Amino acid sequence: MNAEIIAVGSELLLGQIVNTNARFISQQLAGIGINVYFHTVVGDNPDRLKSALEIAENRSQVIIFTGGLGPTKDDLTKETIAKHLGKKLVMDDEALASIESFFNKTNRVMTENNRKQALVLDGSYILPNHHGMAPGMMLEAGSHIYMLLPGPPKEMEPMFSQFGIAALSEKINTGEKIVSRVLRYFGIGEAALETEIMDLIDQQSNPTIAPLAADGECTLRLTAKHKDYDTAIKMLDEVDLAINSRVGQYCYGYDNTSLISELMKQLTGSNLTIAAAESLTGGMFQQELTRLPGASSVLKGGVVCYTNEVKHQVLKVKQETIEKYGVVSRECAEELAVNVAQLVAADIGISFTGVAGPAELEEKPVGTVYMGISIKGRAPIVKKLIIGGTREAIRSRSVKWGCHHLIKQLQESQKA
Amino acid sequence: MNAEIIAVGSELLLGQIVNTNARFISQQLAGIGINVYFHTVVGDNPDRLKSALEIAENRSQVIIFTGGLGPTKDDLTKETIAKHLGKKLVMDDEALASIESFFNKTNRVMTENNRKQALVLDGSYILPNHHGMAPGMMLEAGSHIYMLLPGPPKEMEPMFSQFGIAALSEKINTGEKIVSRVLRYFGIGEAALETEIMDLIDQQSNPTIAPLAADGECTLRLTAKHKDYDTAIKMLDEVDLAINSRVGQYCYGYDNTSLISELMKQLTGSNLTIAAAESLTGGMFQQELTRLPGASSVLKGGVVCYTNEVKHQVLKVKQETIEKYGVVSRECAEELAVNVAQLVAADIGISFTGVAGPAELEEKPVGTVYMGISIKGRAPIVKKLIIGGTREAIRSRSVKWGCHHLIKQLQESQKA
Repeated sequence: MNAEIIAVGSELLLGQIVNTNARFISQQLAGIGINVYFHTVVGDNPDRLKSALEIAENRSQVIIFTGGLGPTKDDLTKETIAKHLGKKLVMDDEALASIESFFNKTNRVMTENNRKQALVLDGSYILPNHHGMAPGMMLEAGSHIYMLLPGPPKEMEPMFSQFGIAALSEKINTGEKIVSRVLRYFGIGEAALETEIMDLIDQQSNPTIAPLAADGECTLRLTAKHKDYDTAIKMLDEVDLAINSRVGQYCYGYDNTSLISELMKQLTGSNLTIAAAESLTGGMFQQELTRLPGASSVLKGGVVCYTNEVKHQVLKVKQETIEKYGVVSRECAEELAVNVAQLVAADIGISFTGVAGPAELEEKPVGTVYMGISIKGRAPIVKKLIIGGTREAIRSRSVKWGCHHLIKQLQESQKA
Repeated sequence: MNAEIIAVGSELLLGQIVNTNARFISQQLAGIGINVYFHTVVGDNPDRLKSALEIAENRSQVIIFTGGLGPTKDDLTKETIAKHLGKKLVMDDEALASIESFFNKTNRVMTENNRKQALVLDGSYILPNHHGMAPGMMLEAGSHIYMLLPGPPKEMEPMFSQFGIAALSEKINTGEKIVSRVLRYFGIGEAALETEIMDLIDQQSNPTIAPLAADGECTLRLTAKHKDYDTAIKMLDEVDLAINSRVGQYCYGYDNTSLISELMKQLTGSNLTIAAAESLTGGMFQQELTRLPGASSVLKGGVVCYTNEVKHQVLKVKQETIEKYGVVSRECAEELAVNVAQLVAADIGISFTGVAGPAELEEKPVGTVYMGISIKGRAPIVKKLIIGGTREAIRSRSVKWGCHHLIKQLQESQKA
């Protein structure tokens, strides 16, 4: 069974808001094994809405509308569908009572056009709206299932996950579970990753393997279908193993994680505190870490050492080092990492120094980056990188490489 | 002239990512007077992509594709369009050179499938990709204009705004110039702003006035149409003046600026250096400032003082202050601002201390924020705020309020 999502609203076509509803509904439908083949966005125009509806009927069995159920003149989703299907709109007493009580509760006066929201397609199954006024509805007609949902995400999301999904599950009953797993990679490009596992991608149809690249990282989404949930999980495990026996050294985590979250887990797990000396990255590493609740148990703090003066006076980098090697150097990165850990009495010090551009620095080209890592009881190490892209890309990739190398170092310490 | 945006990618239909590209492109097209009537999302499937293309040809003159230009097997946008239009794909030497240099710069080995990205539709106009590898392209065929853009927003957005819009503008040439200006506001809510200027919004049709709220800020987009460019500008000036004679105290800038950029301009203009002590914000203020090229001329550096220990030992906040008032206090914010400026010998010190949540701190509720500002030769001041929302919203709003207050302080100093 396949589905199409039609979002109705001129504000989407003007670029005033993003179509997060299509994403939410798609995620939920994947969970019950309904394939979504198309998303459509159409404005508050009855002719174009009717044509979108006709196109959807030619290619999709389940057609889900969001938006255009409100009280105003340009809300015309159910009116257009009623006319197209030759159905009447009838007053739903429960919905009307719910709208009236909404006005009573908020001490506002109900205007006549609000009654319009309680009109529903004759013969439809009603989805109650617990976070707003317009009810949703589901109607079967011919070989299609039509579902109408309100536009505001605060109303649509709870309505769909609570009532919409249940109503659809009853209708489809394919018995198949669809289970997905996202494998996350860093340190390998998308093309190289795909080359390594090309034969697996080619020969797999269940589970499917879908690569995606974004922000210097790659992911592989594995999706398995099976009537038995445990078997679907086992199918994922097998492909996961086959892939990661080849490229596992680049795989840093699963599903909704990130490099910085994985680093935080490592630090928390080993009960280690960290400090950062940030020149190139200007505080980005610490700002990323402190986005996570609980950062205070691992991050002691650090210094944004944007000038040579601060590197020398606050972080005690030797004047000699700066004069002889420059601040974009292996030597400076090492001193920064060691000294910042000492300054705030942390177990680990990490440092970032380099050239973010637009101009080169100390005759080193844009994209030259040195990262120092000092772990208590071990000799400090320095990694050099050449990173391409914009100023912002160089800075954010540096933070990711920093997390990557530090995670590897901590894993090695544990093994040792 | 009307347009349709077709985003290609199964990750969109699975709900893994949101279609922000459609929003971005729609906004940009509105700015040059092209109406967008439909958005479509289709997966990495050549048959369904072909059918979406045929439907689009029946209803839209300009068809803009995003996604599916990458190196992997499931990237097939240009292949599908080439086949449908009976066009060849030819190697673009410039694009190939650009891809090769991308690999050289980053010291990575180019795999064979990366060459595929330099293939373009025969006869198309190339849109260079300065932030990635796959070039974009525009092709006129029959009565249609086809434009192909990469999927990653970091590549697509600069390509489209820099080259795509210019290429389309040349083609449409309605004879009318469309000129837009964005007015940026901070410190006033959207509803309050709209109430202040409701009569102006109601009576205007050219220029139009479109309010939009996002990330704690409001904007008004003024758009004027006229055959004569200078007259269009004059029309914008008049409405701008009418609006800002009422709400000008909240207007911090125009078009693509930001609070942090405006602060940077102020500091550069007055030749002042700054330092930051960041507890709550964990480095976010400095990371925002150092995103801007040239930050090194104003930011000396600062300290992320995430623990009380670092506040006391590195930033010399008195133990007595911490014990008596706590670290989320007026007194601590003041000492932090004064002392960080002293530590790195900067003209200005700014500090952020507060409760980002999820738990309260020192019995102060989540969202309590104190910001200290110390300007050389003036008594330090502290601002207290109560900010609602998530952990991340509290942190980023704090940085914006910090910029806002510091800009106001610097403007006052200049007047004095």
